[in-house]
Amino acid sequence: MDLVLIAIVLGLLAVVYGIFTSRQVLNSGAGNEKMQEIAGAIQEGAQAYLKRQYTTIAFVGVVVAVLVAVFLGLWPAVGFVIGAVLSGVAGFIGMNISVRSNVRTAAAAQSGLQQGLTLAFRAGAITGMLVAGLALLSIAVFFWYLVGPGGFAPDSDEVVYGLVGLAFGASLISIFARLGGGIFTKAADVGADLVGKVEAGIPEDDPRNPAVIADNVGDNVGDCAGMAADLFETYVVTVGVTMVLTALLFSEVLGDLLLPMMALPLLIGGACIVTSIIGTYFVKLSKGGTNVMGAMYKGFIVSAVLAIPLIYFVISYALGGMGTEIGGAVAGIDPGAPLAEEGTAEQVVSFTGMDLFWCSLIGLAITGLIIWITEYYTGTNYRPVRSIAKASETGHGTNVIQGLAISLESTALPTIVIIAGIIATFQLAGLMGIAYAATAMLALAGMVVALDAYGPVTDNAGGIAEMAGLDDSVREKTDMLDAVGNTTKAVTKGYAIGSAGLGALVLFAAYTTDLAKLFPDADVDFSLENPYVIVGLLLGALLPYLFGAMGMTAVGRAAGDVVVDVREQFANDKGIMAGTSKPNYARTVDLVTKAAIKEMILPSMLPLLAPIVVYFAILFLAGQENAFAAVGALLLGVIIGGIFVALSMTAGGGAWDNAKKYIEDGNHGGKGSEAHKAAVTGDTVGDPYKDTAGPAVNPMIKITNIVALLLLAALAAG
Amino acid sequence: MDLVLIAIVLGLLAVVYGIFTSRQVLNSGAGNEKMQEIAGAIQEGAQAYLKRQYTTIAFVGVVVAVLVAVFLGLWPAVGFVIGAVLSGVAGFIGMNISVRSNVRTAAAAQSGLQQGLTLAFRAGAITGMLVAGLALLSIAVFFWYLVGPGGFAPDSDEVVYGLVGLAFGASLISIFARLGGGIFTKAADVGADLVGKVEAGIPEDDPRNPAVIADNVGDNVGDCAGMAADLFETYVVTVGVTMVLTALLFSEVLGDLLLPMMALPLLIGGACIVTSIIGTYFVKLSKGGTNVMGAMYKGFIVSAVLAIPLIYFVISYALGGMGTEIGGAVAGIDPGAPLAEEGTAEQVVSFTGMDLFWCSLIGLAITGLIIWITEYYTGTNYRPVRSIAKASETGHGTNVIQGLAISLESTALPTIVIIAGIIATFQLAGLMGIAYAATAMLALAGMVVALDAYGPVTDNAGGIAEMAGLDDSVREKTDMLDAVGNTTKAVTKGYAIGSAGLGALVLFAAYTTDLAKLFPDADVDFSLENPYVIVGLLLGALLPYLFGAMGMTAVGRAAGDVVVDVREQFANDKGIMAGTSKPNYARTVDLVTKAAIKEMILPSMLPLLAPIVVYFAILFLAGQENAFAAVGALLLGVIIGGIFVALSMTAGGGAWDNAKKYIEDGNHGGKGSEAHKAAVTGDTVGDPYKDTAGPAVNPMIKITNIVALLLLAALAAG
Repeated sequence: MDLVLIAIVLGLLAVVYGIFTSRQVLNSGAGNEKMQEIAGAIQEGAQAYLKRQYTTIAFVGVVVAVLVAVFLGLWPAVGFVIGAVLSGVAGFIGMNISVRSNVRTAAAAQSGLQQGLTLAFRAGAITGMLVAGLALLSIAVFFWYLVGPGGFAPDSDEVVYGLVGLAFGASLISIFARLGGGIFTKAADVGADLVGKVEAGIPEDDPRNPAVIADNVGDNVGDCAGMAADLFETYVVTVGVTMVLTALLFSEVLGDLLLPMMALPLLIGGACIVTSIIGTYFVKLSKGGTNVMGAMYKGFIVSAVLAIPLIYFVISYALGGMGTEIGGAVAGIDPGAPLAEEGTAEQVVSFTGMDLFWCSLIGLAITGLIIWITEYYTGTNYRPVRSIAKASETGHGTNVIQGLAISLESTALPTIVIIAGIIATFQLAGLMGIAYAATAMLALAGMVVALDAYGPVTDNAGGIAEMAGLDDSVREKTDMLDAVGNTTKAVTKGYAIGSAGLGALVLFAAYTTDLAKLFPDADVDFSLENPYVIVGLLLGALLPYLFGAMGMTAVGRAAGDVVVDVREQFANDKGIMAGTSKPNYARTVDLVTKAAIKEMILPSMLPLLAPIVVYFAILFLAGQENAFAAVGALLLGVIIGGIFVALSMTAGGGAWDNAKKYIEDGNHGGKGSEAHKAAVTGDTVGDPYKDTAGPAVNPMIKITNIVALLLLAALAAG
Repeated sequence: MDLVLIAIVLGLLAVVYGIFTSRQVLNSGAGNEKMQEIAGAIQEGAQAYLKRQYTTIAFVGVVVAVLVAVFLGLWPAVGFVIGAVLSGVAGFIGMNISVRSNVRTAAAAQSGLQQGLTLAFRAGAITGMLVAGLALLSIAVFFWYLVGPGGFAPDSDEVVYGLVGLAFGASLISIFARLGGGIFTKAADVGADLVGKVEAGIPEDDPRNPAVIADNVGDNVGDCAGMAADLFETYVVTVGVTMVLTALLFSEVLGDLLLPMMALPLLIGGACIVTSIIGTYFVKLSKGGTNVMGAMYKGFIVSAVLAIPLIYFVISYALGGMGTEIGGAVAGIDPGAPLAEEGTAEQVVSFTGMDLFWCSLIGLAITGLIIWITEYYTGTNYRPVRSIAKASETGHGTNVIQGLAISLESTALPTIVIIAGIIATFQLAGLMGIAYAATAMLALAGMVVALDAYGPVTDNAGGIAEMAGLDDSVREKTDMLDAVGNTTKAVTKGYAIGSAGLGALVLFAAYTTDLAKLFPDADVDFSLENPYVIVGLLLGALLPYLFGAMGMTAVGRAAGDVVVDVREQFANDKGIMAGTSKPNYARTVDLVTKAAIKEMILPSMLPLLAPIVVYFAILFLAGQENAFAAVGALLLGVIIGGIFVALSMTAGGGAWDNAKKYIEDGNHGGKGSEAHKAAVTGDTVGDPYKDTAGPAVNPMIKITNIVALLLLAALAAG
């Protein structure tokens, strides 16, 4: 239990860092009155949206919590509530920091690039550390309570399903937050662009555009609050399911080592919080330099490199030495590890602490490689973005064709990295190896979220600088900061979906292991030769397509509403365009809010209901064993389909966005050229790709898997 | 053997129909001199392209044929050559009919809509019947020779791998033809539009545009020759693998029934040739009507409905009654049929002729449903196309967003139909049930290809009418005929990929069955719990993405070459735009030819090499059993990934195209409006989607599977 307490202390450290840094940020200058007025409107809109979003989610959440309590008992329901509430809190705090830092970043950028960077990055780091810290604390404290004061065994159903419930709560909030926020931000963005840039011919962020505040609110509720909830979820699910799998696989063989093995993922998370905090202090421009991305990387590299010895130390400390053998005869299903005896009902798995260390290192390496690949596909210095920019010269059509080609292509390298990671970690330590790679990936979440949450702050800062009529040099600086934001945003999404690929395999393993435990008599055939497995794979792969279609349509529809509203405002009050009267920003914000809330419900139900519907449909048609097989295959199908949909959408969207930026930097004719117009089209297309449909696939994959796990438990209980 | 001879006679009937109808078509008026001159240029260009394409393919083909002969022996190599040559012949004849019928259709349309329809549809029907007839003949004659004069047993390796070799030859040519033709047609189309419509401001099909002949050539080499080779391949692979699976599964239990059971798919194919020929005579407009699509459907419905009793009759005839039990104790692997005894090494499968009849009916129903769903997603009368047209009002970006949303959504219903088909047919007759559904689907290929091959003829007819300066009323009629062509083209692709979904499952079953036979000691774990299975699934799902990316990029690059060439021609000879001198059409045709040939090679190597590379990579890393498992999973991964990529691309592209047509019909502002410009962008984006990358996924899936089958045989022999 000491190990869990250490993890709790390290989680609290992240919270302390958050509070301390918040003070620093809030104490810095908030700019002139005009800037504060604009920031106030954004803040108000964001809070109003989140309030409405959370109220709606609360309804769904209460219903689901009651269902969980009825079918699965008290502790899963308690876990669900903790996960749901803290996921909401993470998003809420992130948004609140973001809406206060935007104006301060604009103010700081008046003094210099470094000052703006420091402020915006600190704001991001607060969100980052709070996401990682709260995620770690939620699992660690809940686990500590259950196995300590609660008196449950670490491998008891209360602990296992309590943790699954916790993950479920986090995932459910996160899919709503990602989708709702994503629809909000892109409906406002696309709508504002269409009616402002295209119809009225006024520039981006022009205060005469009634949708301009909604656009800035969107950055905060989508890219900040939604993203924070998403990464909170990814963290909780990955670390939680690693603990669950440990309990399911090794409950009978580990003896006294079971508790330390279950606490180890928490410790790795805690260790990386420490290195992430240290890393934040290394995010600095080199003297007189302007390489913002380089400054970011310095921080990330410091966090990752320092993590290596620390992870070695915590594994050694928790297991009492790196040579400690983990494993033994495991009853029931094939745990998938290197087997000592084949063909027996009991199989022997065995690996050492050192193996787990190597697997963690592979996890860190995957993170680094995915960041590098994402930068290649979305950075302005490389072939992909430049090829899209060049294709813009021949028009809208060729821009989109090339963008789609890049988005398809961008899936290859990350998939190959993930596959290599699966093979290497599996050969080292079986399924636990994959789980530890995923855990190590997520352990760096604090730093990755910091890099990402920085983006909306600088984006808003630019908007405020524009609307408040600050000197052009300020907007130039915020633009430099913002350009990096596009890449870091894409990086986080690639990272989240990559980790989801590994994490979901662990979830699938938990499903099969749990199935073997709960239904020992069921002879479930997960072989590809079983057509119900193929049916499940096809249905699973369909989900991200359908989900993506719904998300894209929702953005289109809501953006259309924005256009209608703005047109009306322009028509009813000619003073708006003349600049003599103020548009009704709040009305547009309110409209987008309602649209986003309405549109987020149906797609979110898809992953929630799919495993249940498939189970009962196949149960009816072909019996329970085939139903279990089809649901299991559904889980893998969602991963296999989802990884490609999500990777292609997020990288493609980032590439389109930066191709536009590249042209705006004066290439291929620069701003206002025909190539630029084509690039704006590509950027618009990429918007719902990268900020609505694509990233929401990540929690979607996880929810499908978690619901299936809970379904098993409910069936076994009922 | 009588049964096989009957199938041969029915196959010859299709050829006779083709020759007879060709005479009719060629005897009709070929228009005035100007029209003939234009048609001559198109004809010349198409022949030059196909000559160069086939020369290039011949090089690859000879190398592969030698490799097949060396590693697999004589008969697979002979089969390969037959399949390759006849696939080429099918495309070549289709193209030749098409380039002669285009001008005659334009001439006939001068007399009336019905006259134009009759001529264009007859041209399509010739291609359709020749594709189905030649495909049926190639298998039937080869099979007849091997088991008759050749003296081999129906389940001998010579027959089994001979048929696989035949399928391989057809597939290899078809992927080259689909990709090469697809790149040609879309590079010319997109290039001509960009430089003509956008830059020079001249209308489509304007004779001053040097790329206009290349564009028309493209319709013939891509949409006609490429499509014909593709459907030839699909037919040969589906029917061939059904026979192969029969031999592999039932060689020991069927006794005297083995030969009739292997001949039955040929007979079903022959029966449907008869009904398809009858159906062609029902393609007529109702009196004074203009419902071209309705006329087409009449023909299809007659073919399908007449097929029902005929299929019943041939099954009953071949098996000696509908109640005949097929099956018995099958050694080795689980054949997947309803099992009499579970858990034994020997399993009993059993179904009757009546079961096979129901499965065939399900195949026909799947065809009908896919046509209906495709029409819903690509027809101008329904929500999807109209939603894209409406979204065009707010600009290029929203048009593309809505188009992408529709393309994602359009995968859902066909997948669900396929899944329902899999479940129903599997419950009726196991794997053979799925195989018979696929066979029945393909049996109607003659009619489906007829509907499709009609498209490029009318498209060309419109171009010729425009260039020859015929009366506007002629162009109006060809436009009415052409609008239907967009939907029928999308229908064929949905049909081909849907049948590929079923056919590929049968191929996968052939892989596992063959594996169990050739490597009886290998304990291959195809369970989803084996991480090498997951690795294979991920790699397989990656292939269509990478392939799609390559295809899209190739079109973009080649279209760029066209733009440069046309710009040069305009710059060097001012007389072209003035209309005083003729552009150098041949130079552009030649340029696109070279570009298409060059670009088609690399992507075609992907499915050819993937199974081999994956096998040896996993062999090296994790041993032979895991290598077999990973390759098997790769095959399913390609299907699962490929179905969604192909369906979304082909339906999405068709919807974009018809959204443009819908606006051109006077909706949302009509031709020349801002909405129309946005719709043109969407159409351009959809072009490589629906005509290059999407349809080529179908042969890609099959090649991957067939190469894996041949790999097994080569490994077993070596």
